[in-house]
Amino acid sequence: MGRGTTLGKYCVIESGAVIGKNCSLGSHVIIHAESRIGDNVRIADNVVIGKQPARAKRSIFQDKGQPKLPPAVVGTNCIIGAQAVIYAGCTISDDVFVADLATLRENVSIGNNTIVGRNVTVENFTTIGSKCKLETNCYITAYSTIEDFCFIAPMVTTTNDNYLGRTEERFKHFKGVTVRRGGRIGAGAVMLPGIEIGADAVVGAGAVVTKDVLPRTVVVGVPARVFGKTPEEQLLENQGWE
Amino acid sequence: MGRGTTLGKYCVIESGAVIGKNCSLGSHVIIHAESRIGDNVRIADNVVIGKQPARAKRSIFQDKGQPKLPPAVVGTNCIIGAQAVIYAGCTISDDVFVADLATLRENVSIGNNTIVGRNVTVENFTTIGSKCKLETNCYITAYSTIEDFCFIAPMVTTTNDNYLGRTEERFKHFKGVTVRRGGRIGAGAVMLPGIEIGADAVVGAGAVVTKDVLPRTVVVGVPARVFGKTPEEQLLENQGWE
Amino acid sequence: MGRGTTLGKYCVIESGAVIGKNCSLGSHVIIHAESRIGDNVRIADNVVIGKQPARAKRSIFQDKGQPKLPPAVVGTNCIIGAQAVIYAGCTISDDVFVADLATLRENVSIGNNTIVGRNVTVENFTTIGSKCKLETNCYITAYSTIEDFCFIAPMVTTTNDNYLGRTEERFKHFKGVTVRRGGRIGAGAVMLPGIEIGADAVVGAGAVVTKDVLPRTVVVGVPARVFGKTPEEQLLENQGWE
Repeated sequence: MGRGTTLGKYCVIESGAVIGKNCSLGSHVIIHAESRIGDNVRIADNVVIGKQPARAKRSIFQDKGQPKLPPAVVGTNCIIGAQAVIYAGCTISDDVFVADLATLRENVSIGNNTIVGRNVTVENFTTIGSKCKLETNCYITAYSTIEDFCFIAPMVTTTNDNYLGRTEERFKHFKGVTVRRGGRIGAGAVMLPGIEIGADAVVGAGAVVTKDVLPRTVVVGVPARVFGKTPEEQLLENQGWE
Repeated sequence: MGRGTTLGKYCVIESGAVIGKNCSLGSHVIIHAESRIGDNVRIADNVVIGKQPARAKRSIFQDKGQPKLPPAVVGTNCIIGAQAVIYAGCTISDDVFVADLATLRENVSIGNNTIVGRNVTVENFTTIGSKCKLETNCYITAYSTIEDFCFIAPMVTTTNDNYLGRTEERFKHFKGVTVRRGGRIGAGAVMLPGIEIGADAVVGAGAVVTKDVLPRTVVVGVPARVFGKTPEEQLLENQGWE
Repeated sequence: MGRGTTLGKYCVIESGAVIGKNCSLGSHVIIHAESRIGDNVRIADNVVIGKQPARAKRSIFQDKGQPKLPPAVVGTNCIIGAQAVIYAGCTISDDVFVADLATLRENVSIGNNTIVGRNVTVENFTTIGSKCKLETNCYITAYSTIEDFCFIAPMVTTTNDNYLGRTEERFKHFKGVTVRRGGRIGAGAVMLPGIEIGADAVVGAGAVVTKDVLPRTVVVGVPARVFGKTPEEQLLENQGWE
């Protein structure tokens, strides 16, 4: 445990966990074995870091012959909200904000400066880029890729199984959502399995997206249809961000 | 507490609670009085089992003259995820998986081999069958029945009050959703009060279901309309599961 | 700590916190510095009260020059559910029910006799009236106003940024939802930014509301269109409530 780091009450720090300098941990924080926390990280009350996944007997993910997961890694200057759960095998870059009650699963990576909102779920085998905003309650399914500068609004749902749990065939086709650089998805929208949202595209609030969305294109409705082009002033290249 | 059972730190086991053999409890687990946990159960950090319900003054459920709730019961080989809350009067069969942050209320029963996803809510007076999958963030309202082999996708919403909290009349008509054997509901779909989804029927992602759905029928859209028949190869009888 | 108040195990009560008479706190409850809890309050396990907000570097809310937040205030006869998180600067009136896993942010006020459902989020700078019901998983965005007697069904989503995180212009236009006295919103509905729902108006389940809704008007669909008038017997004035 690094110099200047403070702990609340009743924390549990398991063997081999490494915590950097000038961190602050709330009360009742649990850091599982081998987890690695960078410098200047603030962890709120009741957080669990480094949880080992447990498989349901009927889970599509089974661990036979898989190597042991690497430890959870949290970069420097991160903030982790109350009641959040971060699994072993999750890697969080620097300056990431994880809000209260979020869950980040194993085999997930989160790019720097990304905001993971309250109660967001990021399922396993998923990559989230840098400077994204995943807003409250949104659900990112397994096998998804979200590139840099994406905006996923509250209560967005993504899916990865067109067969809703039936047929052996489905195991060949599991595919999450892909959101290209600067893609944005409005509140409460639903993405069907395997959908790709193009760079700087926009999905309107409440849309149900059944087909890929071309870059710089706005879609709305149920099912989603093309509504127009992304407004010039909203294009990523016109934000002066880089 | 049975032989071979291990506890994390700062657990609270109240009087009369019974925990079987070869269980493992994480840290900060709270097992309330009289709860009964079977053998080989794994309980993650910060779980609360056997919580007594508290009523809001204006709750439609009041406890006048009702008998005391029986204890929470968790069957053998179950897995309970971090931050989950299981109430007194909830009965969980064997081989059930309850993911992180799920809440199972009083007067709920969960059949064997069912998966209750992350942050799922199952409200009171509800029966969930065997071998179901209730996926992340789905909401099962009070007075619902989900039979065996059902699939409820992420962010599905069910309702039980057509009067949205008005009129005395409404108290006679509260009714949740009924999903018959093998019924499946797609991501983000909304079920109106009292709806019945027939055996092996399918509700498309994002649909708003305002009428009962016949067995082996697929509905989609807002409001939901018949789209076709459930594909042969997706019928329950063609899965080779039993 | 008032007379007759009881604490579970491993609670953390920080300096300057005031807890009234005849309260009961579960185990692992954390009451941060200066928080004020009224009489007869029941707080379930793992609750966090008085959490200080932490800002992401890229949050639209920055604290430069802002005065320190006042303490969290919880009125008499309130019930706070397991795993709930209540921020410093949140004020909760009397007889309020906050269910499990709810989050109430800073600069939020909740009127008396209101029910805040399980996993509800109320974001900052938001006012909730008296005798409202905010149901399971609903999301109330920042800069919103919900007046008295409103009903917000499960999984309702509200939004406040028409620009989905782009342009400097957007900072001038952030606006949440306004729901006038007795307004009701059905399950899974989505409100676009700045929408006003009139007094005693009703939004149907699954609707996507893109325009203001007039008082005593029912809207349904995607996008929402007028369906008719609120039924006489459902008007607030005909409930005999006051």
